[in-house]
Parts: sequence; C-alpha cells; structure tokens
Amino acid sequence: MKTTLRQSICVVTIFCGLAPLTSAIAHAADALPSWQEGKVKQSIVDFVAAVTTPGSPGFVAPVDRIAVFDNDGTLWAEQPMYFQLLFALDRIKVLAPQHPEWKTREPFASLLKGNVKGALAGGEPAIMQILATTHSGMTTDEFDQIVRDWLATAKHPKTGRLYTEMVYQPMLELLAYLRANGFKTFIVSGGGADFMRVFSERVYGIPPEQVVGSTGKLKFELRDGKPVLVKLAAIELVDDGPGKPVGIHQFIAQRPIAAFGNSDGDLQMLQWTAAGAGKTFCLYVHHDDAVREWAYDRNSSIGRLDKGLDQAQTHGWTVVSMKDDWKTIFPEVGAMPVATASSDGHK
Amino acid sequence: MKTTLRQSICVVTIFCGLAPLTSAIAHAADALPSWQEGKVKQSIVDFVAAVTTPGSPGFVAPVDRIAVFDNDGTLWAEQPMYFQLLFALDRIKVLAPQHPEWKTREPFASLLKGNVKGALAGGEPAIMQILATTHSGMTTDEFDQIVRDWLATAKHPKTGRLYTEMVYQPMLELLAYLRANGFKTFIVSGGGADFMRVFSERVYGIPPEQVVGSTGKLKFELRDGKPVLVKLAAIELVDDGPGKPVGIHQFIAQRPIAAFGNSDGDLQMLQWTAAGAGKTFCLYVHHDDAVREWAYDRNSSIGRLDKGLDQAQTHGWTVVSMKDDWKTIFPEVGAMPVATASSDGHK
Repeated sequence: MKTTLRQSICVVTIFCGLAPLTSAIAHAADALPSWQEGKVKQSIVDFVAAVTTPGSPGFVAPVDRIAVFDNDGTLWAEQPMYFQLLFALDRIKVLAPQHPEWKTREPFASLLKGNVKGALAGGEPAIMQILATTHSGMTTDEFDQIVRDWLATAKHPKTGRLYTEMVYQPMLELLAYLRANGFKTFIVSGGGADFMRVFSERVYGIPPEQVVGSTGKLKFELRDGKPVLVKLAAIELVDDGPGKPVGIHQFIAQRPIAAFGNSDGDLQMLQWTAAGAGKTFCLYVHHDDAVREWAYDRNSSIGRLDKGLDQAQTHGWTVVSMKDDWKTIFPEVGAMPVATASSDGHK
Repeated sequence: MKTTLRQSICVVTIFCGLAPLTSAIAHAADALPSWQEGKVKQSIVDFVAAVTTPGSPGFVAPVDRIAVFDNDGTLWAEQPMYFQLLFALDRIKVLAPQHPEWKTREPFASLLKGNVKGALAGGEPAIMQILATTHSGMTTDEFDQIVRDWLATAKHPKTGRLYTEMVYQPMLELLAYLRANGFKTFIVSGGGADFMRVFSERVYGIPPEQVVGSTGKLKFELRDGKPVLVKLAAIELVDDGPGKPVGIHQFIAQRPIAAFGNSDGDLQMLQWTAAGAGKTFCLYVHHDDAVREWAYDRNSSIGRLDKGLDQAQTHGWTVVSMKDDWKTIFPEVGAMPVATASSDGHK
C-alpha cells in the first residue's frame, strides 16, 4: 500500500511539473496568515523552500534543521519588564508574611509598599537578591508548581491577559511552519530554564528538553530516603549574549541554521548561526508598534536593539517590523491552550 | 487508506487474541540475541512489555519513555583506565615537542618516560593537570577533530581493538531494543560531553544532543570576525554521582523511567529514576568476567561498585553478571560502523 501511495504521488508530481515548489510556497502562505505579504514574509518562505527542496544547492537534511528562538521579546512580550521578574515581584508579596524583617530591608521594603521603581533602584544587586529569594531554597518540583500556579492566575498589568496569552501569534505560526518543514525548534533565552520549561510545550509546542535557558546550581539530597534536587542561589550559566552560543553548544550540540531574536543579547547567537557552513537565516523582531505593543530599540533598558540593527543591515539579516509586517500581534484571548491543574506538559 | 490499514490491524488483533503481547516478547527475544535466557533478560523484557502495552497498569506514553545510560563501564569498557584518560595521555605525547619544559616537570616528565603509574601517582591534581592541558586552549571544532583522529587510529593496549570496538554488544542490542519500543535513549556520564559526542551517534545511535556529560566552561570569541568557542580550563558540571540527577534535570528536563549503570557513581542516577511515579527499571552491569573482560567491584579504584550492589539487593534492581548473562561481550571486530574522515555524525 505504501508503494502504491508513493507511486501515486510521483505520478501527480510528474504531471504537475513545478507543482511541488509552488504548492510548498502556497502552503507556506496559508501557514503564516498573520504575516503581511512582502519582503519579510518572502525571505522566510524562500529560506524554507531552499533548505527543504531536495536537489536545491541550499538543501539541508532534516536532522540538521535546527532553529533557535529567543523568548523574551521574540516569542512573548517583555514590557514593562521581563515577565519572570514580574513573577518574582509577585512571589515576594506572597512570601512577605513569613519574613517580617523585609518591612525594613531593601529592596523588599519598597516593593511591599508598592514602590517597584524604588525596589529596582538598587540595580543589578537588588534584582539578583529578588531573584535569589524567589528562585532558590525549594526543590525543583516545588518551583515547578509555584510557576504553574502563577501562570494560571497572574495577569499582565496593562493588558489584563494571562502572561501565556502575551505571546506573538505570528511567531506561533512561524514555529509551527518550521516544524511542519522538518525543523527542530529550540528556545535559547536568558530566562530561567526551569521557569520557561513549565509552559514551553503547551504554549509553543517546544518540549522542555528543547529549552535552553539560564540555570542555577542544584544540590542532590535524600530527604527521608526520597531524592530531591534543591535549587541553590548560585548561577551556573547565564544564557545571554556570548552565553547563548555557549548554551547552544552545551545543550543542542549542533550549530543552528536559523536564529530568531529581538535584542543585542541575541547578537552572538545570530553571529554563531550565520557563521555556519551552508545556507542560514537570521531574523530580528523589531519592536516598533507603540499602539498594539511597545516601541523600543536603541536606547531601551530592556531588550535594547542597537548593534543588532546595524549588524542586520550589514549582513542582510531579516528585520521584522511588528507594525508593518504583522497583521496581528497577540492571539485571541481564550484561543490559547489552557493550563491543566496538575501538569502543563509531559513530566 | 490509513483507515483501511488500521482497520485491518484491528481485525487481526481481535482474531489473534493475546497475539500482540506474545509477539512483542518473541520479538524482544530476537532483539537481544547476546543476552542469555534467564531472570535478567526476562526482567528487561517484562519491564518493556509493561510500559508499552496499552491498557497495562504500567503503561507509559512514548514521550515519557526516557532511558539513561552511563558510558564508562556500562556501554564501553573502562580498564585499565577511563579511555578518555588514555586519550589525554596519548595527547600529551603528541604535544610534548612543543613543550620542552615538560621533560623536567611532573606529571609530564614521568609520562614521557613511559612511566604512566608514576605520572598518575600525583593523584587527582596530576590527573586534572593532564586533563586541563589536553582538553582546553583550543576551539570546540579543533577539539572535535583531535578526538575524531584519535578514535580512528588509537588501539586499546590489551585487546588491540579500536576503542569504539570496546563497546558491549549486549548493550548495543539493548539500546536498539528500547528505541524500537519508543524509548528515547540518553547517555548520562562522568565523561566529557565534547569527547563522547564525537562518536555517540555512530557507535550507539545516540545523537549528540542526547549526550549529557561533564562540561568545561567555554568562551565566545570573534577571531578575524569569525565566531569560535574556546574551551577553558575550568569545569562547569561534573556529571558524576550526585551530579547525574543534576545533569538529567538541566539537560533532559524529565525524570527517566529506566537507568543503566555499573558503579557507585551511577547510584544517585538510579535512585532518582527509581523514585519516579509509575513503573521504573534500574540495572547495574556487574564486571565479574575476568576471562573475557575484567572482574572488579567493591574495592576497585575505577568503577567501584559497592554501595550500589547493596542498594540493588535492597530495591530489587537488576544486576547483570557479565559472565553468566552475556553470551558475547564485544562485537566482532570490523562489525562496527567505521568513522569517516570528515564526520562521525551530523554536525
């Protein structure tokens, strides 16, 4: 039966002449409905056609079709600040009753008075203290549940959406389109791996083992004979900037052929990808839509895109204008897969 | 057509009654020809049948069928010392002409006089110095090529085989058998990830991204505009003992349902696996065949199996006697896939 089917396909292919290529592109157009027609969308479709068409000089075997995506600002929004930091701030409030001493200790004191700006005025040390307090001292299973509960209920301060509804509809389509064309999709993000892995499969279709993120040190312990992994307040890998090619090497063990980012923190990942042998594709999402999202680039404190814009120009990388190239930014509320009580993905 | 095919299968299944289970076991017997019939082999086959039979209380969805294997002493031999250390010793000899100062400096001086025992008499500091000298200071691509070249030519001092021919035939069959039953197989080893990834796909059918090993720190650099990753003489993760569950969490992000080891360095990995919900399987390879391989366990300096033997007894883990349970130890020379000049796997 298989042979018969394949034979039928061959016959159809022969009779239709150029049909396979044409239909691949047509299919692509359907697969990316939230992308405006134009140069940007065409650059994606052309790349995918080149690496997936057998006999094309750019053809890449499916096993080597690795695509890496930054998360914050590339797959979901990152304003007014990284969502993981918003999680940490919420978490401080939950933990406060157990820590009366925080009433007089910064950055906690300001935060508990509702003065986020004051709390973060201490810069990186203050942020690191907030992250350490909220991301260590529990087991990996406990942390997983805490993040799961937060994602199920916390709402974005501006849009009132769940954070997992603040993902970019065109990027969801792009992820699915690449996978339909034999790509293996990975997240490579400065965000915490343990944080992102809670929702990556449900929201992006990216299983936890394909999420590369920043990691903290862990300690193996037997508690009443039961083994646990305890999250320590010490960083192992900062998967950002030059740490991204490092994370790619350590976790993916192959050089990607396509990389997607939105900030200078993604620059080295794009450089690493672009330097590979064969056809490669690099894309920056440019936040230039102040009406439907946020507009920021060269001077932003979060998600600064400065060197990257210049490099994109020099190397001919694709730059997506969120304003002009995306018909839709966010998915319809209620259209996203909903978190279940006990599990977001396979564990 | 699909429906018709599926319907046919259903009809066959109904008419044959218990046939599917029986044939699965029969197939298993064929898939493990180097394993002697008996309790050990049966424990493997029973576990696989339980987790793969739909409707069985132990059924596990394919996506959750994660199996982890130690490498040294579990998938390939580890005597007279870890093969990666033999690689390092060979490498010192190659590098010696560029380092005249080594003639009078330990551990190099002894080593270059052929006195390996003397060189290693300095214990861990001496070994770490040898490893740092041979595993850092080059790019990841350069290291990959050095390992590739060594594996293609270096021979084991006792057997005269290539090191990649010192793998255990029964374990190769077991890897393939598990994969044929929907398992995803991983290496979780104290060996260097960059070392093992050179041959894991060709020899074990395990792609590089499914190899978790010890890692060193890396530095991203642009050299004449070309990005490279330089291996530094600083350790990031020691993927041994309590480091194995840590490596599993960081890299695999799921708890395995089956774990295979041979030493106390694998104990925490087996404990972590055994503590999972649902049906799990833990197995120790016991080196008790002094004629065909080596015999060592409770007091060995390499691959000591002491606590693990006791724990296996307590928890009912499977212990493989290499002497009694394996018909064959190594594959026929020449039967292994050969390394090609340029590439061992997909890059």
